[in-house]
Amino acid sequence: MRPIALLSDFGLSDPYAGQLRAALARHAPGAAILDITHQVEPFAVDQAAFFLAASAPHYPPDAVFVCVVDPGVGSTRRIVGAHVQTPEGGQDFLAPDNGLLGLLLFTPGLAPARVFDLSGASAQYAASATFHGRDVFAPLAARLALGESLAQMGEPMDRADIERPDWADTSCGPCGVDARVLHVDRYGNCLLSLRAGFEAPGPVSWLRMSWGQRRGVRPVNAYADIGPGEIGLLSGSQGFLELAANQAPAAEALGLRRGDSVRLLWG
Amino acid sequence: MRPIALLSDFGLSDPYAGQLRAALARHAPGAAILDITHQVEPFAVDQAAFFLAASAPHYPPDAVFVCVVDPGVGSTRRIVGAHVQTPEGGQDFLAPDNGLLGLLLFTPGLAPARVFDLSGASAQYAASATFHGRDVFAPLAARLALGESLAQMGEPMDRADIERPDWADTSCGPCGVDARVLHVDRYGNCLLSLRAGFEAPGPVSWLRMSWGQRRGVRPVNAYADIGPGEIGLLSGSQGFLELAANQAPAAEALGLRRGDSVRLLWG
Amino acid sequence: MRPIALLSDFGLSDPYAGQLRAALARHAPGAAILDITHQVEPFAVDQAAFFLAASAPHYPPDAVFVCVVDPGVGSTRRIVGAHVQTPEGGQDFLAPDNGLLGLLLFTPGLAPARVFDLSGASAQYAASATFHGRDVFAPLAARLALGESLAQMGEPMDRADIERPDWADTSCGPCGVDARVLHVDRYGNCLLSLRAGFEAPGPVSWLRMSWGQRRGVRPVNAYADIGPGEIGLLSGSQGFLELAANQAPAAEALGLRRGDSVRLLWG
Repeated sequence: MRPIALLSDFGLSDPYAGQLRAALARHAPGAAILDITHQVEPFAVDQAAFFLAASAPHYPPDAVFVCVVDPGVGSTRRIVGAHVQTPEGGQDFLAPDNGLLGLLLFTPGLAPARVFDLSGASAQYAASATFHGRDVFAPLAARLALGESLAQMGEPMDRADIERPDWADTSCGPCGVDARVLHVDRYGNCLLSLRAGFEAPGPVSWLRMSWGQRRGVRPVNAYADIGPGEIGLLSGSQGFLELAANQAPAAEALGLRRGDSVRLLWG
Repeated sequence: MRPIALLSDFGLSDPYAGQLRAALARHAPGAAILDITHQVEPFAVDQAAFFLAASAPHYPPDAVFVCVVDPGVGSTRRIVGAHVQTPEGGQDFLAPDNGLLGLLLFTPGLAPARVFDLSGASAQYAASATFHGRDVFAPLAARLALGESLAQMGEPMDRADIERPDWADTSCGPCGVDARVLHVDRYGNCLLSLRAGFEAPGPVSWLRMSWGQRRGVRPVNAYADIGPGEIGLLSGSQGFLELAANQAPAAEALGLRRGDSVRLLWG
Repeated sequence: MRPIALLSDFGLSDPYAGQLRAALARHAPGAAILDITHQVEPFAVDQAAFFLAASAPHYPPDAVFVCVVDPGVGSTRRIVGAHVQTPEGGQDFLAPDNGLLGLLLFTPGLAPARVFDLSGASAQYAASATFHGRDVFAPLAARLALGESLAQMGEPMDRADIERPDWADTSCGPCGVDARVLHVDRYGNCLLSLRAGFEAPGPVSWLRMSWGQRRGVRPVNAYADIGPGEIGLLSGSQGFLELAANQAPAAEALGLRRGDSVRLLWG
C-alpha cells in the first residue's frame, strides 16, 4: 500500500489532524501515514507551498500527498490532483487549487506533472461543509493508496490552468532580485522564494528590506562559515536559499518575518 | 490487531507522550497508534471529553481509546472501561472515572455502553506512583488490542455510577439555553457544549456572556455564510455547535475563553 | 524490522522532523517510527540527554535510537554509536559526540555499552552540509534497523573517550549536593540531574538556589502527598529526582528555569 504524507494548517492542539489520520486509517488500513507538518500558519498557502516543494523529494517515490491549507473551503475553489513521474515511481498530490502546488510543480529538473480536476470525484462524498480534509481529501487519498490512479478519478486539465501565485515567480533585475520570506524556521533562519540553484550575475553583497534598510550579506557554504555578527546567504538543505546568522536567529537580527519582501543586490 | 487511539494532556515537549507510545509498542508490537491529541490543556477534563466525543465516530470501528487527563492521579479515583457496540464492530474506552467519558457516553444515537470497573486489573501492575498512562493504561490497552475483552478484565458496573459532570448536561429555559465553551480552536472558533442536533424552540438571535454583555448571533450553515463583523452559529464538523466569525477568531471578537459560560437566546 | 526512536530539537513547525521520518521510511520501509520528542529546546544537549536516559528503558528492547541535537553540525565533531545489551535484546544509539549520551551510558544497573566511532560510515554519504539528521543519521539508522550491527559499521572506541559533560556528574559534599535543572515539564515540575536512587546521608530539608535564596523542601512519595504551598522532592517516573508543588508549577514557585543550579541540603 502506498504511504500517505500529510501537510496542513490544522495544528496539533485541536483534534483535526487526528481525525484526518483516523479517516485515513479507516479508509486505507495499514497505509503508513507520514506527517510533513500540521503547523503551517493558519491559511498560509505560501508557507505550505514551500514546505511541500522542500519535502517531496525526501518522501518515498510512490507517496500520496494530502495538502490542506484551504482559506476558501466552502467556496467554489476546486480540488486538484497532480501526478509527478520519477525514475523510481510516481508521487501524487492532492490540494485545493489555490497556489499550494505553485512551487512544487515548477521545481527545476522535475518531470512535467499531469494534473487533474477532481471536482467530480470530490462532489460524490457527503461532505460536512467545514472539514474537507477529513471528509473529502482522506477518502480520495485512500483510493490512491489502494491502487486507483488520478486518471481514473479526475478530468485531465491543462497545467497552465493551475493557480500560480505571484510569489512563485522570480523577478530578477539588472542589479538585484526580489524574494519573499516564505518561512522563518525554529532557529531563526529565513527561507527565501529563490531556488538553491539561483545564480546571480554577480556576487551578492547586499540585502535591502522592503522598508529601505540595507544590510551586508555574504554567500557561504555552511552555517559554520558565518562569522559573529555576520549574515550569511546559503543553499541550506531545503532546496531554497536562506539567510542565516552565526548560532543566532537571523530573522531577529534583520527584523524579518514570514511574508516580508527583500531584495538581494550584487555588483 | 486493534488500533489504539491516544488522548492526553501530556503535551509534546516532554517525553511523556513518547513513553506512552513506547509502552504500547512494547506490549502490543505492530498495533497502529493514532494520536487524537496530547495537547489537552493540563487537567482540562471537559476539553478532553469534548475531543473524545467529537473524534470517536471518525476512528476505526474496533479502536481502543486510551484517555489520560487525570488531575486525581495518585488519589483513589478508579479506572473505568466502556464498550460501545457499533454496526461495524465495537470501540473500547479506557479513562479515569472523572467525567472524561461524560460526553461520549451520552452521544445521541449511540448504543448504550457497557461499563466496567478496572480497579482490580489496574492494581496488578507495579505502577510508578506518578505515571499511570505509561505504566497502567498502556498494558491494559495492549491487552484489549491483543484480543482480551473488557468483560474479561473488569467488573461490570452500573452506567449511572460513572462520573457525569454538570457541564455535560444542557440546561434549557423558555427563552434561552446555557452552554459552556468547551474549546477554542486554532482558528478562534468557540466550540459549545450543545450537540449539533440541538433544536431551539425559536430562532437564536442573541448571545449573552456570563458578564452580562449581549451580542447578535446568526445561525448559518457554513463559515462562508458569515458576513464581515458578524458572529455565526453553526454545526461545524465536530458534532457540537460552534460560534465563528468571518475568517477571523470569534473568541477574540467575543472575549470568550475556554471554560466560559454563555447563554443562547431566541424569540 | 527493528523499531526506530527519534529525539531531536527540530520542533514540529518546520518540515525537518517530517523529512527525517520520510528518509527513514524510504531507507527502511515498514520500520515502526517512535518519536520521543522533537521539542528539545534548540541546542539543549543536557535536556536531550535527560530525555534519552529517562525514556530508553521504556522503549522496545531492540530499538534503534536516532538522537540529533547538534550545535556543532558542520564542524568536526564525530558521530558515535553505542550498543547496550539488555536481557531481552540490545538497543543501539546514534548521536553526535557532544554529551548527548552522557547520562544514558552511566545509568546505574545498565550493562557497559560498547561504543563505536562512525566517522568513516558517515563520511560515505553525500551529505548536505546542513541537515545531517535526514542525510546521514537516517541512512545509518536504517542499516541498523535492517540488520547490520554497529560493529560492522564503525570503529570500536574507548568508552572513556566519549564526551562526558560536567552536568552528568554529581558533586556531593558533607551537607549538600549540587544539581542542575535538566528540564521543566508541562506541569512545572523541575527534573534534576540526580538519579532517583540517590541517597543523601541525612534527610533533605532545604533547597538553596544559585542566587542564595533558601526554601524548605520535603521528600515525598507521590504528588498527592505534597501539601498546599509546600515543595516536594520525589522520584517521579523518569528515573531522576524532581521538585514539585501541589497541583501547581514548582518552577514558578521557586523561580527556577532549565539550566539553573540548585543545592539540596540535609542535616
